[in-house]
Amino acid sequence: MHAPGDVRVEDRDDPAIQEPSDAVIRVAAACICGSDLWPYRGTDAVTEPTPMGHEYVGVVEQVGDSVKNVKVGDFVVGSFFASDNTCEICRAGYQSRCVHAVLMGTLGTQAEKLRVPLADGTLVVVPSTPTAAQVRSLLAASDVLGTGWFAAVAAEAGPGKTVAVVGDGAVGLLGVLAAKQLGADRIIAMSRHADRQALARRFGATDIVEERGDAGVAKIKELTDGLGAHSVIEAVGTQESMMQAIRATRPGGHVGYVGVSHDVELPGIELFYSGVHLHGGPAPVRRFLPELIESIMNNEIDPGIVFDLTLPLEEAAEGYRAMDERRATKVLLETENA
Amino acid sequence: MHAPGDVRVEDRDDPAIQEPSDAVIRVAAACICGSDLWPYRGTDAVTEPTPMGHEYVGVVEQVGDSVKNVKVGDFVVGSFFASDNTCEICRAGYQSRCVHAVLMGTLGTQAEKLRVPLADGTLVVVPSTPTAAQVRSLLAASDVLGTGWFAAVAAEAGPGKTVAVVGDGAVGLLGVLAAKQLGADRIIAMSRHADRQALARRFGATDIVEERGDAGVAKIKELTDGLGAHSVIEAVGTQESMMQAIRATRPGGHVGYVGVSHDVELPGIELFYSGVHLHGGPAPVRRFLPELIESIMNNEIDPGIVFDLTLPLEEAAEGYRAMDERRATKVLLETENA
Repeated sequence: MHAPGDVRVEDRDDPAIQEPSDAVIRVAAACICGSDLWPYRGTDAVTEPTPMGHEYVGVVEQVGDSVKNVKVGDFVVGSFFASDNTCEICRAGYQSRCVHAVLMGTLGTQAEKLRVPLADGTLVVVPSTPTAAQVRSLLAASDVLGTGWFAAVAAEAGPGKTVAVVGDGAVGLLGVLAAKQLGADRIIAMSRHADRQALARRFGATDIVEERGDAGVAKIKELTDGLGAHSVIEAVGTQESMMQAIRATRPGGHVGYVGVSHDVELPGIELFYSGVHLHGGPAPVRRFLPELIESIMNNEIDPGIVFDLTLPLEEAAEGYRAMDERRATKVLLETENA
Repeated sequence: MHAPGDVRVEDRDDPAIQEPSDAVIRVAAACICGSDLWPYRGTDAVTEPTPMGHEYVGVVEQVGDSVKNVKVGDFVVGSFFASDNTCEICRAGYQSRCVHAVLMGTLGTQAEKLRVPLADGTLVVVPSTPTAAQVRSLLAASDVLGTGWFAAVAAEAGPGKTVAVVGDGAVGLLGVLAAKQLGADRIIAMSRHADRQALARRFGATDIVEERGDAGVAKIKELTDGLGAHSVIEAVGTQESMMQAIRATRPGGHVGYVGVSHDVELPGIELFYSGVHLHGGPAPVRRFLPELIESIMNNEIDPGIVFDLTLPLEEAAEGYRAMDERRATKVLLETENA
């Protein structure tokens, strides 16, 4: 990305092993994230030409001398933070805040090849050869599924619970899928787009609420005996969506928030009296990858259907435009390795 | 309270049963809460003469026709919200947000007699006659102990955890006691007052940090391998104390906040990247009362020592002054029923 709105596909040097713990992979597929739109739209500054992308699946091409858990030829999935997976924070399940974390976005996964630091801790091997549909789902696991899953876990979605989902982007939709898989009784998707409503229902939503803001909160309360949902997934990251999520949650309930909270200020006194649990942040996707890969390879879940536009990597700029203009929910970029 | 700084003890009509679910108790002891200082100092408005106090223990004098769980002559403890203890929110453990909750502060427990709504759900019977020391501890259970306990539970204090406590008032000090009882390995009290440090140590603090704000956060990180505490109890309720608590918590750790969050705005993006769990609000003390009463009556804990000034109810004004001027941590008001 050279500037907001200016995405170019250019030749760069092939990445090489720099540390003994690195791997280099041939990227099979990458994608464009809702958060890539923040710089694209100028909300986040772009001060110099920047490699883009932080989602990826691919085949290991080369490993550093100390790498033990992955080998050349393995089909692997990673997430948007490289992590050692051994430090105290990783062991507690917060690999996105690993003491040695490396943000993959700084390396740029929208590319044919990618250097992955801390390969042993970061990459998870897919045990058999994935089908084309499974590749798409594994790519979803790399971020949007892993993030939606974390949001559902943070919101303590589960049996006996009513879960509301604020946000109908890929993360919100996969939050619906996660809530369903985690056993939630009732899942209310908040969406006013017919195609996304349909996908939400396909993933397990039992109710759709079209209203937003205070009207949306009132509707959630109406559906929950006036109490609010037990669990609310927040997958937008604006002031309105955060307050909508907090207000739609019953006292003692749980808000799992994964929208990047730009320009949000939470009023302390309202949060205090809400009595909710609030947890979120950059999802520790690595925590969930083994179980997500297993569910995908067993064909129990099919999160890859959130990709509604597939383009060759060369046409990345069109992918950004399509997401920016909401012509696509989630764009997959296929390389020649695919 | 007639106005900020203007506390008077006046004769009022005896309270009477109004609803069949009411009880009237003879208050044995009440006390002055840190939160009573908000109106005393003019931070909260006082628009008309207002009965004060929300902590109480006493003996049941009269019960309404539908009351089943308490009888005349029982020594009882209640908390600052009357609750039915049967609604869905109560059953989930959030009695302070009961759908029928009544704020006891509006009735005023700094009095000789008190009407308690929803007596069956609100009052917990003490199984034997308490000693004078136990009465003080039971009174602490009514709010400051129950609140500190909730904060420690919300912060998930327990075995293997390092707990930091922001605030050295009665709630913070009893948060230390709670963390100790819940099995925390290490308890860091943040205090710069020698007498409160001593009490914190007596309640189980293993470390004292005198620094505040960023310097306090740096000190907590220094004591925790650079990671931050697993659990942080916030018992002040200001912008500085809330941010101190959030920043002193490791990613994936838990902040339990019970300070009333006046004029606090939490920056969304910092909260997002902190990766902490945040939970708090008005403590559902009723949830903990049975176990707290049992521990007190078995002399396992002695929270009543936080009261460092005891005055007859008539001298309530002096009690407010002593707390306002920080001459006392916590003032007990004894009635003639004691």
